Amino acid sequence: MENALREKPGCEIPEAPSARRKPVSLAREQYIDGILRGDRLILARAITLMESAREADREIAERIVEDCLPLSGASIRVGITGVPGAGKSSLIEALGQHLILTRREKVAVLAVDPSSRLSGGSILGDKTRMNGLAASELAFIRPSPSRGSFGGVAQRTREAMLLCEAAGYRNILVETVGVGQSETAVRDMVDFFLLIALAGAGDELQGIKRGVMELADVVVINKADGANAPAAESARGEAENALHFFPASASGWKPRALACSALSGKGIRELWECVLEHRAATRANGWLVRSRREQTRQWMHETIEQGLRQRFESHPGVRSRMTALEQEVVEGRITSFAAARALLDLYSGSGPKG
Amino acid sequence: MENALREKPGCEIPEAPSARRKPVSLAREQYIDGILRGDRLILARAITLMESAREADREIAERIVEDCLPLSGASIRVGITGVPGAGKSSLIEALGQHLILTRREKVAVLAVDPSSRLSGGSILGDKTRMNGLAASELAFIRPSPSRGSFGGVAQRTREAMLLCEAAGYRNILVETVGVGQSETAVRDMVDFFLLIALAGAGDELQGIKRGVMELADVVVINKADGANAPAAESARGEAENALHFFPASASGWKPRALACSALSGKGIRELWECVLEHRAATRANGWLVRSRREQTRQWMHETIEQGLRQRFESHPGVRSRMTALEQEVVEGRITSFAAARALLDLYSGSGPKG
Repeated sequence: MENALREKPGCEIPEAPSARRKPVSLAREQYIDGILRGDRLILARAITLMESAREADREIAERIVEDCLPLSGASIRVGITGVPGAGKSSLIEALGQHLILTRREKVAVLAVDPSSRLSGGSILGDKTRMNGLAASELAFIRPSPSRGSFGGVAQRTREAMLLCEAAGYRNILVETVGVGQSETAVRDMVDFFLLIALAGAGDELQGIKRGVMELADVVVINKADGANAPAAESARGEAENALHFFPASASGWKPRALACSALSGKGIRELWECVLEHRAATRANGWLVRSRREQTRQWMHETIEQGLRQRFESHPGVRSRMTALEQEVVEGRITSFAAARALLDLYSGSGPKG
Repeated sequence: MENALREKPGCEIPEAPSARRKPVSLAREQYIDGILRGDRLILARAITLMESAREADREIAERIVEDCLPLSGASIRVGITGVPGAGKSSLIEALGQHLILTRREKVAVLAVDPSSRLSGGSILGDKTRMNGLAASELAFIRPSPSRGSFGGVAQRTREAMLLCEAAGYRNILVETVGVGQSETAVRDMVDFFLLIALAGAGDELQGIKRGVMELADVVVINKADGANAPAAESARGEAENALHFFPASASGWKPRALACSALSGKGIRELWECVLEHRAATRANGWLVRSRREQTRQWMHETIEQGLRQRFESHPGVRSRMTALEQEVVEGRITSFAAARALLDLYSGSGPKG
């Protein structure tokens, strides 16, 4: 299966180094040319370069992103989340097909999920169900990076987004299963956020995680087909009532609830029209530009914070004392600031690379 | 008015330095003795010391908190928020009176609100309406610190909480009007979070800020008296329906909606019984201990982050370049990581105090 998927350049799966034929090294200009041409294989390799642990790779990768920067930004960025089982993959497949077949537009699908420790790579299960989309030349599908802290994964995804935009992808779907703070991280890098839910046994919407409903611009009740259609419509109404309690977000957009069936395709067109309506409205009232600028500014500060924290945490003195001090703080034996001061002093006393 | 309030040691209001008679300096032991005796004037002065900009004051203050640490923790910490006009002050007054008169327990009220730039001090409006509580010897009321960044205010409030607990205050109410991220900050330092709302013109709960409803352990519909009682009960039902959508929080507690009238006192006892029920349940299932430990651990890491950021931002090279680089990032001329790297390199190249 791995080899078969490897023939499809839109679907990059990290393999064990020994199993992989080493590709010919590319120069920075070749990466950029390829990306601008929309070459999916080169795009995939550039993204892999950004995920590399090697400093040399990372340096080339950053130059590539810098060169692509002026050509980025011209896409609709949609974040998608939903509990496992809500049909996220099927919905992404259906949306993607709508964009490709009906609107004749390119679509990139990026995943922001932490590595599965068991497989040593990204969670692949979802990807095998997207065969239709993965086979299209207008689609680019990328599982999440397979290493690094979560903060790093979010940064890599933002960079991948910029490259996809330079490669002409006008629609970018960023998906997450919703582990930890991933929904918030995705919300902070997209223009529109979509939450997929299911009708439950009663009125209750099944499985919506605390804090996520309020991030959503639209709540989509999936599997609104066959015998489940009435329950789905009922849940849609309940969601609409619940959303009613939340004031309009800063964009002026009032969140909605829709029902759809990824299986039958019902409601998919309406869903994308909703996205386009949000796009037009937030362009018109200036929020889109403001939001993008603020997200970019935030990205810079997150990068700084990560850099500071990384330098701090890799300091030998800090590393040797952190766990013990944390324990003393948690057990109420010393104050937070005493512990923090002890560690900051260790860090500062270290010399120029501090 | 200021002088009259100054006679009541529970209500400390910062005055212009020239207008204030300079109090006799206290030694650290005198502070600690006074706090342990429950002396409100000394407690207030200790808290003021912690808010001081002077390094010398801050050092004494930290020693005081360290000495009080073993005696802290034995209180119920309740966070309270609500939009202006929801009757937050009246409700706190009513709750406070219930604790003092009915339960014969001490109560401390701390505020986490940014300074009012106009007055140069904390927002005092609310405090003047709490005359009843302020007059009681079992109450200690503290407006928020009048200076410093918000992160600093949250830290100071946590420290004030520890001192109040060492002084024997078994109930601590931390209030915020809800500016910026203040509700989240308060949620992270209390055991129980209370949101006050009002019935609106229709079914809609008036004024609940996005993201805050999901922090609440109880939503209280205030002003459930007279002609407004039916509307309040209706809003209470709607809130209950909305809360139904949210799964139980990590504590296992299912959020509730109550109606009350701070004016008539109706529902106040029930409200506190709800707090006590939550207390008993989260003690029994171990969540209270876990939550406090996690909050303390988080506090330590926030303190470290603040220390790192402060050292970074006060670096002369960083200060000279930050605004310009931020502008270039926001306008899409350079990448976030290029800007971050430039600033981090300026910072690291500075020598031992880096």
